[in-house]
Amino acid sequence: MPELRRDPIVGRWVIIATDRANRPQQPRCPPAAPGGLCPFCPGSEDKTPREVYVSGRAHSAHPNSVGWKVRVIPNRFPALMIEGELERQAEGIYDRMNGVGAHEVIVETPEHGKMLADLSDEEVTEVLFAFKARILDLRNDLRFRYILLFKNSGSAAGASLEHTHSQLIALPITPRQVGEEIEGARRHFEHRERCIFCDIVGQERKDRSRLVYENEEFVAFAPWAPRSPFETWIMPKRHESNYEAEPKERLAYCAQALRTTLRRIRIEVMPALSQSVAGFEWGSGFHINPVPPEEAAEFLRKVGSP
Amino acid sequence: MPELRRDPIVGRWVIIATDRANRPQQPRCPPAAPGGLCPFCPGSEDKTPREVYVSGRAHSAHPNSVGWKVRVIPNRFPALMIEGELERQAEGIYDRMNGVGAHEVIVETPEHGKMLADLSDEEVTEVLFAFKARILDLRNDLRFRYILLFKNSGSAAGASLEHTHSQLIALPITPRQVGEEIEGARRHFEHRERCIFCDIVGQERKDRSRLVYENEEFVAFAPWAPRSPFETWIMPKRHESNYEAEPKERLAYCAQALRTTLRRIRIEVMPALSQSVAGFEWGSGFHINPVPPEEAAEFLRKVGSP
Repeated sequence: MPELRRDPIVGRWVIIATDRANRPQQPRCPPAAPGGLCPFCPGSEDKTPREVYVSGRAHSAHPNSVGWKVRVIPNRFPALMIEGELERQAEGIYDRMNGVGAHEVIVETPEHGKMLADLSDEEVTEVLFAFKARILDLRNDLRFRYILLFKNSGSAAGASLEHTHSQLIALPITPRQVGEEIEGARRHFEHRERCIFCDIVGQERKDRSRLVYENEEFVAFAPWAPRSPFETWIMPKRHESNYEAEPKERLAYCAQALRTTLRRIRIEVMPALSQSVAGFEWGSGFHINPVPPEEAAEFLRKVGSP
Repeated sequence: MPELRRDPIVGRWVIIATDRANRPQQPRCPPAAPGGLCPFCPGSEDKTPREVYVSGRAHSAHPNSVGWKVRVIPNRFPALMIEGELERQAEGIYDRMNGVGAHEVIVETPEHGKMLADLSDEEVTEVLFAFKARILDLRNDLRFRYILLFKNSGSAAGASLEHTHSQLIALPITPRQVGEEIEGARRHFEHRERCIFCDIVGQERKDRSRLVYENEEFVAFAPWAPRSPFETWIMPKRHESNYEAEPKERLAYCAQALRTTLRRIRIEVMPALSQSVAGFEWGSGFHINPVPPEEAAEFLRKVGSP
């Protein structure tokens, strides 16, 4: 069973994934399916845990069969386990909690060779809608405090399977970083009675030097203080706080912004950045970014919509 | 001139290193010296900026000549610039500051093929004493609020030159992460009237399951909530708060603990860890560690002192 442990100085929680599959002796990647088949391809549905969400397949069809557009399954090598109650324990001055949570994989398309940026706006909308559906389901589980959706693209970013997919992790605690965002937004509101995110969108749309893409409902831009080159944020233009409350029509605009941004970032040659200050970032939490966001945004704007 | 920018939501500062050498077109690594010579080797002293500290060379000898044991020079491609006054500016709702700071390189030995762990206790003590000397010098500069020493070992960790060296960065602001450590230690003291670091050392020495090495003055252990496998902390056994106040005799004990730990970590085969949750760590600030610290410490203890 994985375990959550709290650093006694700063209060940062980490996940200690004691699962055997995570041990150094056995590197953490799914074994190749028999015959070298990809477990995320249609026809291999029996090689994954049973699906928790699917779109595109007729209601009359069998679960875990072919014919889907987006398929969500529990991660076979989860960082956290879905079963059990939350238990908190002390060990001397230290704190621990058992590693209860959800870890799911969103297979974004049945087509093995495609990347998320290759999909159509409609297909990306289906993926974003699957995210929404999973959040709506998991938020009913009172053990969870925070749900994060993320995607590692390509083996350099650590994706262990090449068939394009995203991941979802539901946590029993709110990460400090998220708590600080909420606290920062609250502080801004208390001082100015305005939403910090709306203020940011307003300044970016006015200034335009960091703007990457804009449609009727969403805007993509390089943030003022990016931690890494070509970091890009996508935000709704109108004040909205809940992703899972967005109707499909608005998710379609978000999909368009996401897909366009991804295509531009892929076309733009990513710099071979030195990691020579890695120890500094680790030691101070301070990021060094060699590319100013105004330059990154200018590059991405010039690429145009492929 | 590099620039510091503040994220308006959480207040995190980042360094935007606009220096041309940092641009994507020109990857950030020093050009090879003529004839392929290493600029950190004896005889190449004229290929680096002028030294700010040196040990081992006779006082009568010329500066920037051979005969040194440890040599400290300004980084040729600094993340921050030593010249100029601190200037703070607003840009709409955003904050910036010019990138004033120090970025130095500590060449740990004249011998090109050696690693820090290969040096003798006396040689490592000379390196630790050089750290102390640089801190004592830079802390007189009132523009600086924090000084971090760090080391990237090997090209996988991002070291751009193979001749063994550490780095020092002096910052005009206290990193949030450091502020949180200080705040956490203060909170612990207010609640319990005890030092959190002394409490940690006490529990680790009593429990012993995470202990890696111990001598008369220092202890090395895997922390309770490590962010990465084989993360190891070295702490003094008695209550001390200032590294730069340590006399050379005590630095020698610290050097022994550091060198022993480094040799054991190098001998222990580092696991080929999957980065498949990289996006999760980025998005949540939450680290997933596949190796429990008790197992890591047990491995390192078993390696024994080579």
